[in-house]
Amino acid sequence: MLQMKGKQSVLFQEPVKIMSHACVGGKKEGEGPIGKHLDLIVDDPMFGKENWEESESSFLKTAGEIAIRKGKKKKEDVRMAFCGDLLGQLIASSFGIAELGIPYYGVYGACSSIGAALSIGAMTVNGGFADLVLTGCSSHFASAEKEFRFPLGYGSQRPYSATWTVTGAGAFLLNTQKGDVQIRGITTGKIKDYGVQDPFNMGACMAPAAADTIYQSLLDFEMKPEDFDQIITGDLGSVGQKLLFELLDENHKDIKKNHMDCGMQIFDAGSQDTHAGGSGCACSALMLSAVILPKIASGEWKKVLFVPTGALLSQVSANEGRTIPAIAHAVWLESGKEKK
Amino acid sequence: MLQMKGKQSVLFQEPVKIMSHACVGGKKEGEGPIGKHLDLIVDDPMFGKENWEESESSFLKTAGEIAIRKGKKKKEDVRMAFCGDLLGQLIASSFGIAELGIPYYGVYGACSSIGAALSIGAMTVNGGFADLVLTGCSSHFASAEKEFRFPLGYGSQRPYSATWTVTGAGAFLLNTQKGDVQIRGITTGKIKDYGVQDPFNMGACMAPAAADTIYQSLLDFEMKPEDFDQIITGDLGSVGQKLLFELLDENHKDIKKNHMDCGMQIFDAGSQDTHAGGSGCACSALMLSAVILPKIASGEWKKVLFVPTGALLSQVSANEGRTIPAIAHAVWLESGKEKK
Repeated sequence: MLQMKGKQSVLFQEPVKIMSHACVGGKKEGEGPIGKHLDLIVDDPMFGKENWEESESSFLKTAGEIAIRKGKKKKEDVRMAFCGDLLGQLIASSFGIAELGIPYYGVYGACSSIGAALSIGAMTVNGGFADLVLTGCSSHFASAEKEFRFPLGYGSQRPYSATWTVTGAGAFLLNTQKGDVQIRGITTGKIKDYGVQDPFNMGACMAPAAADTIYQSLLDFEMKPEDFDQIITGDLGSVGQKLLFELLDENHKDIKKNHMDCGMQIFDAGSQDTHAGGSGCACSALMLSAVILPKIASGEWKKVLFVPTGALLSQVSANEGRTIPAIAHAVWLESGKEKK
Repeated sequence: MLQMKGKQSVLFQEPVKIMSHACVGGKKEGEGPIGKHLDLIVDDPMFGKENWEESESSFLKTAGEIAIRKGKKKKEDVRMAFCGDLLGQLIASSFGIAELGIPYYGVYGACSSIGAALSIGAMTVNGGFADLVLTGCSSHFASAEKEFRFPLGYGSQRPYSATWTVTGAGAFLLNTQKGDVQIRGITTGKIKDYGVQDPFNMGACMAPAAADTIYQSLLDFEMKPEDFDQIITGDLGSVGQKLLFELLDENHKDIKKNHMDCGMQIFDAGSQDTHAGGSGCACSALMLSAVILPKIASGEWKKVLFVPTGALLSQVSANEGRTIPAIAHAVWLESGKEKK
């Protein structure tokens, strides 16, 4: 039975439900606006490990364990895991999931990875290939700065367009039976490249991809922007948000009234010195678990288009002076009690 | 409808078919045993580009284009692509797929990536989420040596346990209607880590993962080793093969008579100085398109368990002295004309 909708989307005939979820953040995340909603705040940026990367793996593993516990499941019950992170060759996910011993596929979409993981995970559950799927993503300020910009020890100055990589991980358990929030549909993003080359201006890189996916999602699902209570991007920050509005305006879609960007909400930019906002795989993953899903579950929001955004650069491509392509994947979330 | 089988596997109720496929290799690949079966041999290791990474993207893009053409389709007909490579942040795939403009999810399993891409792609087609899916993987000798070992300019000596990363890409178009070869089922691998730390001995890293997935696959599908004409691993090489046999012998599964390793077949180790064999995402992808699928289509082989193997290391984790975990995903292939 074909469940394709429009050009790039899937509308699930049977709902996929988020059984449980968890978010683990670092000290700075704990001190910010979402601190009180985190399941666990780990003050030690090393998480008791020997290096940043191992620490990041521990964030992912811990988020996974908490989500599984909250779902009253055991790790042996999880049929498949889809996880991703920002590090080269997804080492945060590999080492994190290795400890859980769950059958695993790595997925990558930079900071949009939780969108990819949720989308593929939802298809897997809906298709009957797995009765319980774990999706998760992590990022870490220190491992990301080392990977993409400068080692922290250099004390480099950061321009105001720069974002602050969120330290933490979010994990989401998917199934067809239980859960207050359901995934109604997904839109698979295309890679967009407007020629931006500045790794300190991710918002500008990602705005075209976000605009393209949101536009296509609205078209495919035959929805108007105002049909969603919120249209939520991952980590465009204040710079990227402005571009997103302009690009969508050009296509006669005005999302200004109901747009939210996770990167602009996760920190208090004024007091926390995070410049354009938060970023990283954990930015949208933490906001999803700490804020978005609870608001949908409580009925405050009925329909949400969740659009994590990712800048597909690497150390190598950046050093070679290449552009930074970007991608965004959309996930349509709504109350699990809603009628189809 | 649940299609789970055993603990870690999926047995598809309706077949997923490989509509068309393509393999593009470099000069050395063209000179080796599979040279005459390649769709295109690109003698220039730079593929006319400015760096190895762009070259690798061109291999992937070209393989994708040929597969699409052979399937008598247009790139606009492809609903989703799942691709992966070895480079940090999957830049070979991102830049390669960006040029095709197909909705895309990045997948990563190191050299097992084509196993992950085919598995997820098959689920996507079977579940009715896409009527046409492109899966593909690339690797490049020069970009991989730079990423994982030493820049070529150093002229470092290579130990005999080292493998030679295959330059090239394979692409596979999946659908439910047309194709001589079908994907009957998949087994999702677990990450296995036996504590090996030597990036010049990938075979030893990956053998435990291959053994685990093959064992589980046989159990889940209730098959004996001899029920498959061939059980084919990705790139264990001669060193890894020996370990694989030992590990499976311990579990009373003897696959010696019908085991083949893509890494041991893709080059003529004697005359081509490739030591333990070929490796890289393109190793199993090229062998699949150039040798394995044609032999199944011709009826020479009826049932094949295709098990690409991946070593989940990064530059960073290797420099930090961490172990190299590994994973292997199994794909059960058989003639498309076979009855279910």
